[in-house]
Amino acid sequence: MEALKQKIQQEGTVLSPSVIKVDSFLNHCIEPSFMQEIGEAFADKFNNESVTKIITLESSGIAPATMTGLVLGVPVVFLRKQKSLTMQNDLLTANVYSYTKQTENTISIAEKYLSEQDHVLIIDDLLANGEALQGMVDIVQESGASLAGCGVVIEKAFQSGGKALRQKNIRVEALASITSLKNGAITFTEQEAKQ
Amino acid sequence: MEALKQKIQQEGTVLSPSVIKVDSFLNHCIEPSFMQEIGEAFADKFNNESVTKIITLESSGIAPATMTGLVLGVPVVFLRKQKSLTMQNDLLTANVYSYTKQTENTISIAEKYLSEQDHVLIIDDLLANGEALQGMVDIVQESGASLAGCGVVIEKAFQSGGKALRQKNIRVEALASITSLKNGAITFTEQEAKQ
Repeated sequence: MEALKQKIQQEGTVLSPSVIKVDSFLNHCIEPSFMQEIGEAFADKFNNESVTKIITLESSGIAPATMTGLVLGVPVVFLRKQKSLTMQNDLLTANVYSYTKQTENTISIAEKYLSEQDHVLIIDDLLANGEALQGMVDIVQESGASLAGCGVVIEKAFQSGGKALRQKNIRVEALASITSLKNGAITFTEQEAKQ
Repeated sequence: MEALKQKIQQEGTVLSPSVIKVDSFLNHCIEPSFMQEIGEAFADKFNNESVTKIITLESSGIAPATMTGLVLGVPVVFLRKQKSLTMQNDLLTANVYSYTKQTENTISIAEKYLSEQDHVLIIDDLLANGEALQGMVDIVQESGASLAGCGVVIEKAFQSGGKALRQKNIRVEALASITSLKNGAITFTEQEAKQ
């Protein structure tokens, strides 16, 4: 997605060879019309699947997932990282380590929102080591639903998450795929450039 | 908003005289087209203000805030409850107690996203004791921005938050306002019923 790559180049801040800050359009501040374009791009990629439900993980996944759900006309469920008084029982859970928060969280979804009839698209903001996506994949498999695939706004392709998921024959689509952040420069994969 | 009140009646679960579970359309599962209607309803209410920015608090505020921002054509910033490796400095913060999570969180926004030129609309999912809204109001005031008001999807009008904010001459608009959850019955305010 060309407009996304331009935004990453113009507004992304490389904090280290493995960390890029994209808070101006993805993790903190959102331009809703741009998020709508992101939703349309995901919908285009997964249009050939009969997706019945989208799941994502709070918080940065919610806006892109909601916009994708708007285009595909399907519900979106955002998994929680913390337990709440109103969400105690009948949950499907997985343990996920967050590198940027440096905490391990139990992510959860009320089991009634996933059934064997569902064909699920997982949406998330960033793919690095793939912990969050793998946790959501595990939950989908535990529920008996089928998996359409995973859509991520940005993949850091030099980290291992995407490769590990694809080796398990899971379809992973990134709207922008970063090969390197070395020396403060953001390089995208050639494959992505051709799309 | 009549469709919202119907949803609350049909899908809300009264857990106690003060707690209603609305996870099927607001706090966990989202129907994006319905969330778009919610965004349009907020935009209608605040159309007479020249809103330049919307702020909300992760996570359940993000979808309604994003949809409102889409209609009003303004950016949305979601405040964080936890610190992150990529968000350490130059923050505006407030301390907020969450009754449903039973934790105190420091909510934060990067100060660069609020300026004296901003006229800010605060959007949130639920208003009960008003801790989250008050924290966001404090942050807006600290930033030097002006406040257009607060929009909440559901107000529990029998709790003190809305009254306390309105006594400070803060405009608070609820799309549905619940007077009572006693005996498992959901009662809405007359005022809201006439809208």
